[in-house]
Amino acid sequence: MNKNSSNVMALAPNTSNKRETVCIFGTGDFGRALGHKLIQSGYPVVYGSRSTQISNLIPKDAEVLGHAEAAQKAAIIIIAVQRQHYNFLTPLAEVLHGKVLVDISNNLKVNQYPESNAEYLAQLLPGSKVVKGFNTVSAWALQSGTLDASRQVFVCGDDLEAKQMVMNIVRALGLTPLDKGSLLAAQEIENYPLQLFPMWKFPMFLSLGLTAFFFFYCLALDVIYTYIYENNDFSFFIAITIPNRVCPVMALVLLALVYLPGIFAAIIQLHRGTKYRRFPDWLDKWMLCRKQLGLIALAFASLHAVFTLVTPLRAFISWRTSKGIISQALNNKTEPLNHTNAWLSDSYLALGILGYFLFVLLGITSLPSVSNNVNWREFRFVQSKLGYLALILCTAHTLVYGGKWFLSPSAYKWYLPNIYMLSLVVPCAVLVVKFVLIFPCVDKPLTQIRQGWERNPKYSK
Amino acid sequence: MNKNSSNVMALAPNTSNKRETVCIFGTGDFGRALGHKLIQSGYPVVYGSRSTQISNLIPKDAEVLGHAEAAQKAAIIIIAVQRQHYNFLTPLAEVLHGKVLVDISNNLKVNQYPESNAEYLAQLLPGSKVVKGFNTVSAWALQSGTLDASRQVFVCGDDLEAKQMVMNIVRALGLTPLDKGSLLAAQEIENYPLQLFPMWKFPMFLSLGLTAFFFFYCLALDVIYTYIYENNDFSFFIAITIPNRVCPVMALVLLALVYLPGIFAAIIQLHRGTKYRRFPDWLDKWMLCRKQLGLIALAFASLHAVFTLVTPLRAFISWRTSKGIISQALNNKTEPLNHTNAWLSDSYLALGILGYFLFVLLGITSLPSVSNNVNWREFRFVQSKLGYLALILCTAHTLVYGGKWFLSPSAYKWYLPNIYMLSLVVPCAVLVVKFVLIFPCVDKPLTQIRQGWERNPKYSK
Amino acid sequence: MNKNSSNVMALAPNTSNKRETVCIFGTGDFGRALGHKLIQSGYPVVYGSRSTQISNLIPKDAEVLGHAEAAQKAAIIIIAVQRQHYNFLTPLAEVLHGKVLVDISNNLKVNQYPESNAEYLAQLLPGSKVVKGFNTVSAWALQSGTLDASRQVFVCGDDLEAKQMVMNIVRALGLTPLDKGSLLAAQEIENYPLQLFPMWKFPMFLSLGLTAFFFFYCLALDVIYTYIYENNDFSFFIAITIPNRVCPVMALVLLALVYLPGIFAAIIQLHRGTKYRRFPDWLDKWMLCRKQLGLIALAFASLHAVFTLVTPLRAFISWRTSKGIISQALNNKTEPLNHTNAWLSDSYLALGILGYFLFVLLGITSLPSVSNNVNWREFRFVQSKLGYLALILCTAHTLVYGGKWFLSPSAYKWYLPNIYMLSLVVPCAVLVVKFVLIFPCVDKPLTQIRQGWERNPKYSK
Repeated sequence: MNKNSSNVMALAPNTSNKRETVCIFGTGDFGRALGHKLIQSGYPVVYGSRSTQISNLIPKDAEVLGHAEAAQKAAIIIIAVQRQHYNFLTPLAEVLHGKVLVDISNNLKVNQYPESNAEYLAQLLPGSKVVKGFNTVSAWALQSGTLDASRQVFVCGDDLEAKQMVMNIVRALGLTPLDKGSLLAAQEIENYPLQLFPMWKFPMFLSLGLTAFFFFYCLALDVIYTYIYENNDFSFFIAITIPNRVCPVMALVLLALVYLPGIFAAIIQLHRGTKYRRFPDWLDKWMLCRKQLGLIALAFASLHAVFTLVTPLRAFISWRTSKGIISQALNNKTEPLNHTNAWLSDSYLALGILGYFLFVLLGITSLPSVSNNVNWREFRFVQSKLGYLALILCTAHTLVYGGKWFLSPSAYKWYLPNIYMLSLVVPCAVLVVKFVLIFPCVDKPLTQIRQGWERNPKYSK
Repeated sequence: MNKNSSNVMALAPNTSNKRETVCIFGTGDFGRALGHKLIQSGYPVVYGSRSTQISNLIPKDAEVLGHAEAAQKAAIIIIAVQRQHYNFLTPLAEVLHGKVLVDISNNLKVNQYPESNAEYLAQLLPGSKVVKGFNTVSAWALQSGTLDASRQVFVCGDDLEAKQMVMNIVRALGLTPLDKGSLLAAQEIENYPLQLFPMWKFPMFLSLGLTAFFFFYCLALDVIYTYIYENNDFSFFIAITIPNRVCPVMALVLLALVYLPGIFAAIIQLHRGTKYRRFPDWLDKWMLCRKQLGLIALAFASLHAVFTLVTPLRAFISWRTSKGIISQALNNKTEPLNHTNAWLSDSYLALGILGYFLFVLLGITSLPSVSNNVNWREFRFVQSKLGYLALILCTAHTLVYGGKWFLSPSAYKWYLPNIYMLSLVVPCAVLVVKFVLIFPCVDKPLTQIRQGWERNPKYSK
Repeated sequence: MNKNSSNVMALAPNTSNKRETVCIFGTGDFGRALGHKLIQSGYPVVYGSRSTQISNLIPKDAEVLGHAEAAQKAAIIIIAVQRQHYNFLTPLAEVLHGKVLVDISNNLKVNQYPESNAEYLAQLLPGSKVVKGFNTVSAWALQSGTLDASRQVFVCGDDLEAKQMVMNIVRALGLTPLDKGSLLAAQEIENYPLQLFPMWKFPMFLSLGLTAFFFFYCLALDVIYTYIYENNDFSFFIAITIPNRVCPVMALVLLALVYLPGIFAAIIQLHRGTKYRRFPDWLDKWMLCRKQLGLIALAFASLHAVFTLVTPLRAFISWRTSKGIISQALNNKTEPLNHTNAWLSDSYLALGILGYFLFVLLGITSLPSVSNNVNWREFRFVQSKLGYLALILCTAHTLVYGGKWFLSPSAYKWYLPNIYMLSLVVPCAVLVVKFVLIFPCVDKPLTQIRQGWERNPKYSK
């Protein structure tokens, strides 16, 4: 089949409004599910199989033939066979010449083989036009019709015409094809469905570890210490009070950890005097997971906000408030308004609200559809300028909230600082160093370095 | 005009930086609006019309000629004429041969004709290259320049070159073309602008019905009962108290209804012993609107959260709190902290907050741009694992909140249960059956069935 | 190199799994950064440079040759040179004939030259296939590997094959190519990275101006007036109380300003009797920034919501509440429940919550990925119907909240109205005129005009 005739096939349906026949090699689960779906969408389906005996499992409107006869009936052949068995295709090279072969296979592990399955298929059958596709869709989803997950089907291939034909089938099944370029992209496409949030792993484990540490730290100081020395049972603090101490600390620390690698990068570049050397691996990895760190920080900040807002609804808080009011009433006196307290309480609430507001803005701009609509300059403005402003506001919120207790000895139970003091270490360090970095005498050489200037060209060798 | 010359036309503008002439057949509203916009974007426009008399309504920079002369001036002809009048084009077949015809028509009803208008046009003029497009844009939006709605223009057609030319025009008008494949997609594109949230209809009506039922149920028990038997006028409960009882109940019931069809599907498959038979229609439809059900549940949960958080701001609550404190003060006693109450209140708040937090996470991952960036495995992890966790937390939240009243006779006004008891029926049933389904002795055959195994192959016939 | 051989080059890598050589003209910062990244992604890179002396700055795996020799080694040449120096390419026209030239240049100002750099390059070298691309990526981002911003690379060009080759390179570097059509789009692509939220400028300045005005207005009435006439120092009102008065006012006024231009447009069209004349410029601009106005209004509404919810946590409010309760306790009396107050307080809270809920819905549907998934009819339903409902609810919320004070003289300090009264002017005007516009006697001619009818055809000349 030469290029011309494949063209004719692609165009044929327009006049007759009929869909072209699709051939499926292999009658396994995915082959059957795909056949069912194709028949539902109006495609005549012919199966290529070793035994042409009609199996009960095969959709009843489909034809079953030997591989060679089946392949002759269609311009597109879907290879629903595992990679290990691709060898059986070599004898069919002649009949498959010029045909579009759709490789839908998946592997069990990331980078299982040196080359992708689709490229392997293309090497076996150099005369055919191999297109990778459909591997990101599950048979169960196709079968049950409940494609509420991503409807995207990644497609790649070297022949534009062939890719177009496959993408038309994808669209006809109600899915969205996404052209990923030439067959070189097949490896990436085959690895894709095996991932489970790879970018989130490190930030998640870091957060879980830190959360556990801060939780037990608070438990010791707030529940156990109180139980031992003041004989008060505040075990119910586990539900809200302690989480609401851990969450803001985690939010602040993680937000600072988002901006810390940028500080390190600047120092390394200033020290080296060049930007043309790779950062150490740990710094590279850290920089690549800043978005995830920031989003986890936002989650903690949101939990902190809600935990704080439910305060007046808690039985313990109601009881404590009543007790205070009743004791005033019984003592027959009304305390006057403490202006310093009013200022402090309103300030830290306002700082927290504004910081959280900016934080949410950062979160919204990191949604894929929003960040795709801003250019590099706008993204830097939001993530860098607004991000630092959020960090400053949140640090100030913590300082104003707890400032008065820094010098009070009663805050140091077992000589340990309260966790909000611990939480201030990283953000304050980041802010101080950043403040130094924006001084012109430091900023100027850094900017030059980032524009390609080198202090000591030998370094880059 | 052969293929070569069309190529030359498409490439010509690059050197001269001039746009190619566009011809519009028809001087109706949409034809005029499109012409205005094309002229604004730098395209010479020529109208093809029966009467070549220059009308006032036609943009003044446009030429008006007879159909044949107009068509000869351009490689692209936009057919701004209703389908019923397409017959007048048949005599022009020769002059339209090889030209790109853009079908922009819409119908009044979904699937009004057996074939799409664009396919009908392609059948009438087999020598022309028909491209479907622009039908999703409104004339009014084009005219007023206020395209704040979707800027996407769906385009489909069988000739790649022709489609490319039309997509370039779409881009030049400031719109985003979206290639939907071959002309077979025209039917779908023509149906698209006629929809009004088709997937939301059933979930919306179900929610409205249930909400009305629960609202009147609460009204009877909380306002009317109190008025009759306790002679208290709590009619203002209609504004916040009752909505804040109905919202959480709706959220919980709808969330459970999201997971119920999956339970049914599993039971049906276990019973049938195969996955190769279609589910009953009602189950199919139910499964397809699970996302909508979940989002409505999230909306109710959000309303519940806000209604709860404003509690301390309500005049009634302030009054009740004051009354309690004053009565304690007047009796000269301070109630001690009730530890059980403190535990219960903090627990159900914390459970609710965590459940809601997971619920919001589910909502965020169902945003199109987010769900397009996760693969099937990640989507299943979030929607299934985290979803069930959210359901468990929310059910526990309700149980802890109201648990103590289950056995209290005063909770059964008119012998009717409180609505939070009703709300627990579906989620508890779902959780119990799901718990059974994850037992290995049930899970193993189910997994096999979903991988294509059949207990009784005769069934699939 | 004829078209055929370029085809062969594009397809060659599939069998050998090697990437084609890329040539870069220019060893400046971006050229080097791109070279580094290309080498990392497996592309052989050859630099074309005046001096073929190997510089330390050039990635060490890259070859450096004279321009002509370098160009002969590759099918794709990236021109990393500033537009002013494009002249040096003219003598190379022969060797560059049929090659793909990638223009990656940026300008310093929007529309700096009459034609885009890419079009200028295409004019200089009519025999080459010019593709615009990569200009939206920063060298620093490429170098540091921290591409957390938009990974989109806009690509445009007249030769489909050439564009495809460049898009494959873009994909291989881990970026997402976005086909913007023919080279005519180059101007737009070159202007894109120079923007800094152009649509947000006017709404932002308007909001800042109005906010400052209302802030000082409140400061005068609530802090300075109280200080002068009542000798109370309420300076801490600056932190929360006054922001929480300004935010709702801003939210309501800006929401009304979203719907005001639509009202003006309708009046202008009714007056003119035609839709075929352009609106005045100010109205056009106003209509185009309605989405931004609405989102800023939503931000103010969200701040208002949070500022309101933290009320019970404020020291001042706790003190005021205690004072009230204690004075009742000391006077030995309990005030009965004021039913009118209970109704008013619950009503305005409920109205505010529902209005805010709809407002958030509007905000979510304006996310690009959501609005791309709704058609014009659905978008109009949400933005027009639900938007007006939100405006009605928010206006009612304000009226119920402050209604009782309209006639109270004590509300008029210095004979000035409170700001919530000011805030009601625009929304009430919008709602009243809109109410008139939906009367059939006004709505019918307006609908006719919008469908293309003209009262007085002479107008359109």
